[in-house]
Amino acid sequence: MEDLIFGRNAVAELLKSRHSVNKILIAEGSRDGSIQKIFALAKTAGVIVEFTNRDKLDKLCGGRHQGVAAYAAAIDYSTLEEILELAESKQEPPFIILLDELEDPQNFGAILRTAEAVGVHGVIIPKRRSVQLNATVFKTSAGAAQYVKVAQVTNVAQTLKQLRGFGLKVVGSDMDAAIDFKQADLTGGIVLIIGSEGKGMRRLTRENCDELIKIPMVGKINSLNASVAGAVLMYEIFSQRRY
Amino acid sequence: MEDLIFGRNAVAELLKSRHSVNKILIAEGSRDGSIQKIFALAKTAGVIVEFTNRDKLDKLCGGRHQGVAAYAAAIDYSTLEEILELAESKQEPPFIILLDELEDPQNFGAILRTAEAVGVHGVIIPKRRSVQLNATVFKTSAGAAQYVKVAQVTNVAQTLKQLRGFGLKVVGSDMDAAIDFKQADLTGGIVLIIGSEGKGMRRLTRENCDELIKIPMVGKINSLNASVAGAVLMYEIFSQRRY
Repeated sequence: MEDLIFGRNAVAELLKSRHSVNKILIAEGSRDGSIQKIFALAKTAGVIVEFTNRDKLDKLCGGRHQGVAAYAAAIDYSTLEEILELAESKQEPPFIILLDELEDPQNFGAILRTAEAVGVHGVIIPKRRSVQLNATVFKTSAGAAQYVKVAQVTNVAQTLKQLRGFGLKVVGSDMDAAIDFKQADLTGGIVLIIGSEGKGMRRLTRENCDELIKIPMVGKINSLNASVAGAVLMYEIFSQRRY
Repeated sequence: MEDLIFGRNAVAELLKSRHSVNKILIAEGSRDGSIQKIFALAKTAGVIVEFTNRDKLDKLCGGRHQGVAAYAAAIDYSTLEEILELAESKQEPPFIILLDELEDPQNFGAILRTAEAVGVHGVIIPKRRSVQLNATVFKTSAGAAQYVKVAQVTNVAQTLKQLRGFGLKVVGSDMDAAIDFKQADLTGGIVLIIGSEGKGMRRLTRENCDELIKIPMVGKINSLNASVAGAVLMYEIFSQRRY
């Protein structure tokens, strides 16, 4: 299976990674600095470069390709075991994100980008009723999707029970929670749950949380974008791990 | 002048605000819960509701309207003075965001949504070479664009000098800064600068910073989405103000 990846950052990161790339497409007439850099990266990596007209690229990508696209071997999913092993090999308490029926690929990509920056060992998504890895996710992640392990699970509640059995703390955010995220102890092995855009966490997921935390808000709207809420919590966890 | 606002959250928030709405368009056949709620809100507000076919709405909005759009009086920009007055009337040290040539309306909208949640008094944007308030910004902000004051300025460097003259601390983020944002003193009157997606802060803007802070990262990509970086810093400022 092949994936189509597009956008300059995404293709550049793909070429820099050790991921297998089958072919690069560059729009005819694109010759500015960042395209030249991608061309050079492709040559270094021994990847075929094909020049194509912009209309064909528009049709192919159905989105903002910025003059470049790549055919790559499909992004592989990891397993939960591989995520836990990565944490162990780094001698770090596991730092895992679980997306509970997230729907928007842009949010998924943005979450992967932040997760990569703060050293998350892996992201868990449900196999059903959830956004999956695709080209939009890859592009929004600015290429971070290459570097973060993503595992699919069939049953979120059971997975959480299993992870709690391993001593990980499961933390979910909830507008009505009593504890402000800044006051919570977020050190140690942790699973942070990010709920769906519209509905938040499901009941069964919530019931498997060890702790519910609140992101305080003082405005009239009182909701945050899922990737923003995720980033604020990931950075708090990251900080508590560092200091 | 009229603005076209679309998307369910955005239109619902528009109707709840005291902003003047001229007309609501609802796609024929849309009759689920949230559309009925919007219909009721429109009736309460005395706003004309027109049913239209979905194709017309598609053409009009050129984006994901979710079956509803609104014609509203153009969103008004505020002035810098109004932003400072708002802080004074709330007896709070000013909390201002300055977007230095941000380009992406989705980032602008996401930043407004977070800014509204943390009680930012106003957002400053340059008049030129910057994203401006529009329907996409409004939609991505989930309606928060109605509640946050946005001021346009012609000269960012001069504005920063003026605000420093008023005793505000100007803080910018920079990958190479020595100070971790968690260790910085972000209390008191503050202007937080969020740079453009590709290039970060301009030289002249950077030279007008009192303090440069760093968001630490441990991954391979080492860049965050502008709205995510903004959110992480806004929440740190917000927390330091509260505790």
